[in-house]
Amino acid sequence: MKVLVLNCGSSSIKYKFYNMDDESVLAQGGVERIGLDNAFIKVKLPNGEKKQIMADLPTHKEGVSLVFKCLLDSEIGAIKSLDEIDAVGHRIVQGGDKYKQSIIVDKSVEDGIEELCDLAPVHNAGHLKGIRAVDSLMPTTPQVCVFDNAFHSTMPDYAYLYAVPYELYQKYHIRRYGFHGTSHRYVSKRVCEMLGLDINNSKIITCHIGNGASVAAILNGKVIDTSMGLTPLAGLMMGSRCGDIDASAVTYIMDKLNMKPQEMANYLNKESGVLGITGISSDMRDIENAAREGNERAQLALNMYNYRIKKYIGAYAAALGGVDAIVWTAGVGENQTGTREEACANLEYLGIKIDVEKNAKIHGDEAIISTPDSKVKVVVVPTDEEIVIARDTKELVEKAGK
Amino acid sequence: MKVLVLNCGSSSIKYKFYNMDDESVLAQGGVERIGLDNAFIKVKLPNGEKKQIMADLPTHKEGVSLVFKCLLDSEIGAIKSLDEIDAVGHRIVQGGDKYKQSIIVDKSVEDGIEELCDLAPVHNAGHLKGIRAVDSLMPTTPQVCVFDNAFHSTMPDYAYLYAVPYELYQKYHIRRYGFHGTSHRYVSKRVCEMLGLDINNSKIITCHIGNGASVAAILNGKVIDTSMGLTPLAGLMMGSRCGDIDASAVTYIMDKLNMKPQEMANYLNKESGVLGITGISSDMRDIENAAREGNERAQLALNMYNYRIKKYIGAYAAALGGVDAIVWTAGVGENQTGTREEACANLEYLGIKIDVEKNAKIHGDEAIISTPDSKVKVVVVPTDEEIVIARDTKELVEKAGK
Repeated sequence: MKVLVLNCGSSSIKYKFYNMDDESVLAQGGVERIGLDNAFIKVKLPNGEKKQIMADLPTHKEGVSLVFKCLLDSEIGAIKSLDEIDAVGHRIVQGGDKYKQSIIVDKSVEDGIEELCDLAPVHNAGHLKGIRAVDSLMPTTPQVCVFDNAFHSTMPDYAYLYAVPYELYQKYHIRRYGFHGTSHRYVSKRVCEMLGLDINNSKIITCHIGNGASVAAILNGKVIDTSMGLTPLAGLMMGSRCGDIDASAVTYIMDKLNMKPQEMANYLNKESGVLGITGISSDMRDIENAAREGNERAQLALNMYNYRIKKYIGAYAAALGGVDAIVWTAGVGENQTGTREEACANLEYLGIKIDVEKNAKIHGDEAIISTPDSKVKVVVVPTDEEIVIARDTKELVEKAGK
Repeated sequence: MKVLVLNCGSSSIKYKFYNMDDESVLAQGGVERIGLDNAFIKVKLPNGEKKQIMADLPTHKEGVSLVFKCLLDSEIGAIKSLDEIDAVGHRIVQGGDKYKQSIIVDKSVEDGIEELCDLAPVHNAGHLKGIRAVDSLMPTTPQVCVFDNAFHSTMPDYAYLYAVPYELYQKYHIRRYGFHGTSHRYVSKRVCEMLGLDINNSKIITCHIGNGASVAAILNGKVIDTSMGLTPLAGLMMGSRCGDIDASAVTYIMDKLNMKPQEMANYLNKESGVLGITGISSDMRDIENAAREGNERAQLALNMYNYRIKKYIGAYAAALGGVDAIVWTAGVGENQTGTREEACANLEYLGIKIDVEKNAKIHGDEAIISTPDSKVKVVVVPTDEEIVIARDTKELVEKAGK
C-alpha cells in the first residue's frame, strides 16, 4: 500500500509519500504561498537534491494538483498513475474532545473539523481545504485524519480542566487539549523499544522541544498530563510564544498597551518567548551563538528556557509518582545539547545522571545520554510524526477494506 | 517596647497589639466596612470573648481612631495613653522591585507605595490610607512597612521574568513578584528550628494554602521561586482564583464573553477557582462536605486542587535539586487533612511518606506528619505573619534609635 501524508496549513502543504510495504519514503516536499504571489513547490529528490518550481496557486486545489503533478513527473516523480496513491493521511491540529483517535474521513468528519475551526481557526481551516481539494481531485481515494491532540485524550479531568467557571467547559469546550500528540506517541513507544521497557508498566516524560515545545507525562503508555493547553501557547517558553504566565499579567498588559484580545493573543504567540526576551531571534541556534559571544539577554533567555523545562520534568515526575525515562525530541531536543544538559542538571535526587560528554556528541540520532548507572534513562529519539500518520492511515484503510 | 500591627485593606483594618518584651498579644480585633453603611469593630478579648461595636466610619482615619479608642478603653483596652504605642508595623502587599526588605516610613516610602498602587490598586491604596491615618493621629510614632513580596526578592531573574517582550519588564515592571512572603518566611525559619535543620544548608518547600494559596521553593533560607506572579492570581487553584491557565484561554474567553481586561481579571479572581468549578462555595470546608455527600463537581474540585499542589511540589523539588522538608500552613494547609494527604500521596520516589493516621489528627498545631523513616519531613506549621511584622518593626525602630 502506498500512502500520501499531507500537512495542510493555511497557505502551505507539506507532503511525504510512503511505500508502506517497507515504510520507505518515495517522495517528499512542500507547496508554499498558496493564495499569495510567488507561490512555489519544493521537491526533495531521493538523492537529497532539492528542486523548486514556481507556480500560480490560487487555492489549495491547485496546490494539491501540483503535488500530484510532481508525483507523476517522469523525472522527479514516483508513480505513473494517481491510482497508485492508495490512501491519504492528514495531520489535523485540533480534534477537540470529539476525536480521540484517527478516523476515516466522511462528510460528518469534515463537518466536525469545520466546527472545531472555532478553537483553531488558522490550522483547521487549512486542513479542511486540503481534505476537500483531495476529495475533488480523487473522490474515491480514502482519506484519514490523524489528530494532534488525540494521544492526549486519556488525560483525567482534574488534569485537563481549568479552574474557571465549569460552564465554560460545557458551553465552549474550554479545557487543556495538548498538541504534538503524534510526536509524543511516536517517541514514547520508540523509547520503550529501545530500552526494552514494558510500555504497560512505564513512567515516561517526553520533551518535544522545537520552535513549538511541549512536555507530556505518560503513564503505562497513556498521557496523564501535558504542558500545552487549549492552544499551543501554554506551558514552556518557546521560540516566539510566552508559555505559562500570570493570567492577570495578560489583562494588565492589554490595558497598558490598549490591545484587543486577538491582538494580545498574536503578541503572546508571535512576539514573545525567546524572541521577546532577546530581541534577536526565535531560533535557539542564534540564541546559543549570541550567548556564547557574551550577549547577556541571550544567556538569560537560555536560562529561562532550560529552567522551565526542568520544572516541568519535576512536576510530571510528581504526577507520575517517579519516572523511568526522559525523552528528548524535535529540533531543539534532538540537537541542542546545552538545553538537554542544563534542564537535566542537578536532578540526581530523581535518579538522573547525564553523561555530559556523550550528550555533547548527539545531534539528531537515537541515543541514551544518561550514564550507565543513572536510574532514570535519558534518551534522544528523533521524532517521526509522518510515519505515525502513514501507519494509522494504512491500518484504518485496511481494516475498513477500502 | 509595644508594637501595633495593622493590616489595612480598602475598607477594613485588622490589628494586633504586642508587648514585644515577651511577644504577648495585648489586644486584637478588626474594623470592617469603612466608608460603608453598618461599619463596626470586632474586638477579641484576652479571655477569648468577642465584642462588636457599631460605629460611623467614613474614612480610615475614623477607623484607626476607633482602634485607638478600644485600646484605651478601661474595660476592654490594654493601654492608658497612646504614648504606650511605641511603633506601628504595616503589612504592605505590593513592594514591587523597589522594596526588598522592611523599612521605616517616611515621605519617600509613602510616595513609593503610592506609585506601586498601579500594580496592586486595591491593596496598596488601603495600606496607604492606614499609614496616613496613623500619621495624622500620632505624627511622632515611628511606622514600619513589611512587604508581602520582600522575602521573594531573592528569586533569580530566570525565575521571575515572563517570556514576553523584555521592554514590558523595563517599562512596566511586569515580572513575577510572589506574595505571602511574610508567611513563607515565618514557617520556613520555624520548620528549621523544629527539625534542627541548618537553614543555610536546607531545601524547603512551603505550601501556604488558604483562600489565597502559594508555594515557595526556598534554598538555604532564600526563595528561588514561588507560584504567585505579578499578582496573587497565578499558580495554584484557589477559593475563587483560577491559578495557572493558558494565556490564550484568557483572550479566548474575553472574546466569547465580550469582556474588557478589568472585567476578565475580576472574573478570574472572584468567580473562578473552587467556586467556579463547583458553583457551591469558595470555602474548602464546604467543598469537602459536599464531596463527602457525593457531589461529583466538588470531588472534581478537590482533585484539581490537590493535584496542582502536587505538581508544584514536584516542580520545586526539581528547582531545588531535592527537598528536605515540606511545610503546610494557612487555613487549608493547617486544617484540611485530606489535601495534605492527597497532595503528598504517591511521592515515595521523592522520599516522602505521610503518616496518614497522624496527619488526620493535626488541625492547626505544629507537628511532623511524615513517618519517622520518611527522608523528606512533612510538617504542619501554623503561620504567624503578625509576629514577623512586629519583630521587624521592633528591630528597625530600635536600630534607628527612635
